Amino acid sequence: MINKLIAKIQKTKAPIVVGLDPMMKFVPEQIRRAAFAEYGETLEGAAEAIWQYNKGIVDAICDLVPAVKPQIAMYEQFGIPGLIAFQKTVNYCKEKDLVVIGDIKRGDIGSTSEAYAVGHLGRVQVGSSLCTAFDEDFVTVNPYLGSDGVRPFMNICKEEHKGIFVLVKTSNPSSGELQDRLVRTEDSSASGEAEARPVYEIVGSQVAVWGAECMPESGDYSYVGAVVGATYPEQGKILRKIMPRTLILVPGYGAQGGKGADLVHFFNEDGLGAIINSSRGIIAAYQQEKYARFGEVGYAEAAREAVLEMRRDIASALENRV
Amino acid sequence: MINKLIAKIQKTKAPIVVGLDPMMKFVPEQIRRAAFAEYGETLEGAAEAIWQYNKGIVDAICDLVPAVKPQIAMYEQFGIPGLIAFQKTVNYCKEKDLVVIGDIKRGDIGSTSEAYAVGHLGRVQVGSSLCTAFDEDFVTVNPYLGSDGVRPFMNICKEEHKGIFVLVKTSNPSSGELQDRLVRTEDSSASGEAEARPVYEIVGSQVAVWGAECMPESGDYSYVGAVVGATYPEQGKILRKIMPRTLILVPGYGAQGGKGADLVHFFNEDGLGAIINSSRGIIAAYQQEKYARFGEVGYAEAAREAVLEMRRDIASALENRV
Repeated sequence: MINKLIAKIQKTKAPIVVGLDPMMKFVPEQIRRAAFAEYGETLEGAAEAIWQYNKGIVDAICDLVPAVKPQIAMYEQFGIPGLIAFQKTVNYCKEKDLVVIGDIKRGDIGSTSEAYAVGHLGRVQVGSSLCTAFDEDFVTVNPYLGSDGVRPFMNICKEEHKGIFVLVKTSNPSSGELQDRLVRTEDSSASGEAEARPVYEIVGSQVAVWGAECMPESGDYSYVGAVVGATYPEQGKILRKIMPRTLILVPGYGAQGGKGADLVHFFNEDGLGAIINSSRGIIAAYQQEKYARFGEVGYAEAAREAVLEMRRDIASALENRV
Repeated sequence: MINKLIAKIQKTKAPIVVGLDPMMKFVPEQIRRAAFAEYGETLEGAAEAIWQYNKGIVDAICDLVPAVKPQIAMYEQFGIPGLIAFQKTVNYCKEKDLVVIGDIKRGDIGSTSEAYAVGHLGRVQVGSSLCTAFDEDFVTVNPYLGSDGVRPFMNICKEEHKGIFVLVKTSNPSSGELQDRLVRTEDSSASGEAEARPVYEIVGSQVAVWGAECMPESGDYSYVGAVVGATYPEQGKILRKIMPRTLILVPGYGAQGGKGADLVHFFNEDGLGAIINSSRGIIAAYQQEKYARFGEVGYAEAAREAVLEMRRDIASALENRV
């Protein structure tokens, strides 16, 4: 799946993943009205609205980008009906041959992480049968519990030819509270002086180690990737060096403040190695002044325009990099 | 809700939470057979089996313990049908007046954590209506993303009188890879010498700060609790001091290796301050030699016996503490 993702990035010339994070305030009036008319202002109504909204966007962008990243929280908040909309979205995107990155940020003790891995990437044993549940292509994983929490995902990825992205340095303002803390390195005592590295470097080094165990039979990138926020380009530059064979999933472009020029540090010299996520900057583009001409009815075309502009922004940043 | 939980702990004399983590290998033959006969070896069949299994256990233990902790991964692995079984389990336990701790270990950037908080503890806006989705009483939260990822849960808890448990030091063998790393403290430079504290102490101190903002109108314990594994009693002792007004949720008793005598450090001198989780040690008690006399058919009574023994074990450890 990592090779498919890289090949699709090369083919579309778009190292872009569209975040399908459908907040109700993004859903155009006409879609909400139709859904509520059918199901009322209920969880089912909300789920129908976000599903129809997603479908419009996916149809408009599926030939332009290699991948989508539905954020499961935006569905889970609507309970079971919301999760059915998540499942439908995953299935529909796979039908359209998009690579689906489930942004689930799970991570737990071993046996529990195994259950998440099985449910989202693998097959679950029921009696003598194997059943599939959510069946994304990649998922995001939280590393706070250490290797026990990550290895079950690695094992399932190996069997199923799928992949993960481990959180290293997240895009949010408070990510530094824990991730930037300076940690004593193991060789501190040897050198006599206490050397220190931030937590995100420690986790990044670990991702590189896990990644080396998880290389596809051919290809340059591991199926253990990393999440590093666009909002922290300096850290991205360092992490790029620490994890040379890691595909970096970069959230935080656009709405969260990351700019095209900041992104170059996340790429390798081959022009690969990173895939940039934009969510509301694309799916709610019609709400920006720049795309207001499309109106609520044209929300999907506005999303398409925003993808094209993002592709140009990244391409020009990569061309002009020093 | 924190006051209700503390009151129920006092009333039942059982600082115990039963982990409803129904792996298929725990479900007795007769329940599996009946579920597969009705729904086949499908996700629906698995979901029916774990729901019937849970129901038996809940009926057998609901008068003995204050709370249950369903681990959502064990349901999520069976996709939508599994999550429907989770929802039914939450609702059923609440009908039985048990406090329900959803072990979901979510945590994300602000707007996304808000969606999780709304979906699991609060109410979600749909048009002009407010709908409830999973509606647990407490959930567990992962702190890797910092305050941004935790505050939305705190805000919803304040509105809804609910609570959270933040992961501090988890029970699994590899928890130390990140959580035990020694971090330079802020006053390092002032003293001239580099002082260092482990990550779990840093997170624990932060939980104490968050907790102080989240005290109920009356009562000694904050509705921001912490997770500290029974398998790390020395760390528990330190964290108990750092977070005096924090209720500590302690997993890892029994199957994971934690013993009664290790638990005393997690309690305050008032005999409160901790609630000990046991999952397979109770729900799969019938598979232990000690309870084999109950057989598969008597799995629920075996669970009841195991709760009674666990209550004695904890009480005797607390009586004999130095």
